[in-house]
Amino acid sequence: MKIHIVKIGGNLISDQKWLNFSLKEFVKLQGDKILIHGGGKKATLISDQMGITPKFIQGRRITDKETIDLVVMTYAGLINKNIVARLQSYYCNALGLCGADGNCLKSCFRLKKNPYIDYGYVGDITNKSVNTYFIKFLLKNNIVPVLCSITHNGKGNLLNTNADTIAAWIAISLKKDFKDEIELHFCFEKKGVLRDLHDEESYLKRIDFPLFQIIRKNHTIKNGMIPKLENAFLALKNGVSKVSIGHPYYLNDLNNKTIICL
Amino acid sequence: MKIHIVKIGGNLISDQKWLNFSLKEFVKLQGDKILIHGGGKKATLISDQMGITPKFIQGRRITDKETIDLVVMTYAGLINKNIVARLQSYYCNALGLCGADGNCLKSCFRLKKNPYIDYGYVGDITNKSVNTYFIKFLLKNNIVPVLCSITHNGKGNLLNTNADTIAAWIAISLKKDFKDEIELHFCFEKKGVLRDLHDEESYLKRIDFPLFQIIRKNHTIKNGMIPKLENAFLALKNGVSKVSIGHPYYLNDLNNKTIICL
Repeated sequence: MKIHIVKIGGNLISDQKWLNFSLKEFVKLQGDKILIHGGGKKATLISDQMGITPKFIQGRRITDKETIDLVVMTYAGLINKNIVARLQSYYCNALGLCGADGNCLKSCFRLKKNPYIDYGYVGDITNKSVNTYFIKFLLKNNIVPVLCSITHNGKGNLLNTNADTIAAWIAISLKKDFKDEIELHFCFEKKGVLRDLHDEESYLKRIDFPLFQIIRKNHTIKNGMIPKLENAFLALKNGVSKVSIGHPYYLNDLNNKTIICL
Repeated sequence: MKIHIVKIGGNLISDQKWLNFSLKEFVKLQGDKILIHGGGKKATLISDQMGITPKFIQGRRITDKETIDLVVMTYAGLINKNIVARLQSYYCNALGLCGADGNCLKSCFRLKKNPYIDYGYVGDITNKSVNTYFIKFLLKNNIVPVLCSITHNGKGNLLNTNADTIAAWIAISLKKDFKDEIELHFCFEKKGVLRDLHDEESYLKRIDFPLFQIIRKNHTIKNGMIPKLENAFLALKNGVSKVSIGHPYYLNDLNNKTIICL
């Protein structure tokens, strides 16, 4: 049995037309499937409206109490439930989850390596975080899990976790059950990893690890693309066979995207 | 097998100490259990912070697009996920749900009886709204459903539905499976239905339908207590055997609360 693990990016989520399109393509995927999302862009809009100033250090959101509440509301509430309601309208039996639901994703507060950076309510996950028993139980009963990037630490705290990292660890954790039949898709608003940000058609067909090291070093890729590719290689190095980055327009297509390989 | 259906009120939810206490008492209930919550008080606080003016007509929240987004964020996100994380920390395998999740609660837009009142994104439910198959499937697998008062119409819309009404219809819908073993508890910050709002000990031990008609007419009860009692009698008239209104302190106690009966 095949399984598709699809992470959908924030720019697609923020645009209702593209979100609906992405969900329609997701529904068409054959076999088991899991959808994962964050929603940082929407959270920033709402925090502006609430007069909360978002804080970032090195591109990472710093999550104080006020911010975790905002992020939980936005990801697990507004975005997750609208996605689930939309999928249900497409006759896809979706179930929205944060990590606390059914104890499906457990994390730990991020350790302070640098004493000047307290990430706050940020959770890190490992190879023991995913409750594969529960996820497989849902899949076996034809339920489609829709996970937002909120985890919990088992002590009552909700924590903010990177959605790409969650997607990678879920794929890794399901590896022994699905073997070579796991496909991990990182969907976003571009056709793939672009050589030239101003040229939509300049996407790389294939990135292996040596090429990744080169394009990181020469700054062809930067910002959010670096951790995304790191998560792609994390999955590959831990046995996930197929990883791609591309536009939802080509979600059901083997071509027209960037294929990541070791 | 016994089942407890517990609706927890907004004043308990807004107070972290009382919320934790209520959840601890909920966990102690023997047999299957379902928790239901709204969160209007918290939604009002957040809407103030966002500069949204809440609108009410005849004590009912009017739900425009801006308000449904706010309510979904607050109920299905912030409140629901904090409750679930807390229950998980008490080793209770909770799963948070809105009506779209697993298609568990389907509703219809409220019909406009009065052309001057458009309730907006408000959903009404009936005896066909509850997906008992899914709810029983969760219970059978030792999962504790935690439902917020957001439903969906199957066409992609999330709708705001009264939490007391949801609790009543869930109890009614599970009647044929649990027979006389259903207990419906409306928990709030008082010991029961008070004769005198200023005297905590003045709660009525027992309210039957004739007494309800009297105390409604002579204004002993007013505002939110009237629809709450209407929902209690809705459940009783549709075959639910045990309905009570009281403080979570006495959730596991047969006394010290108002028992509702026909």
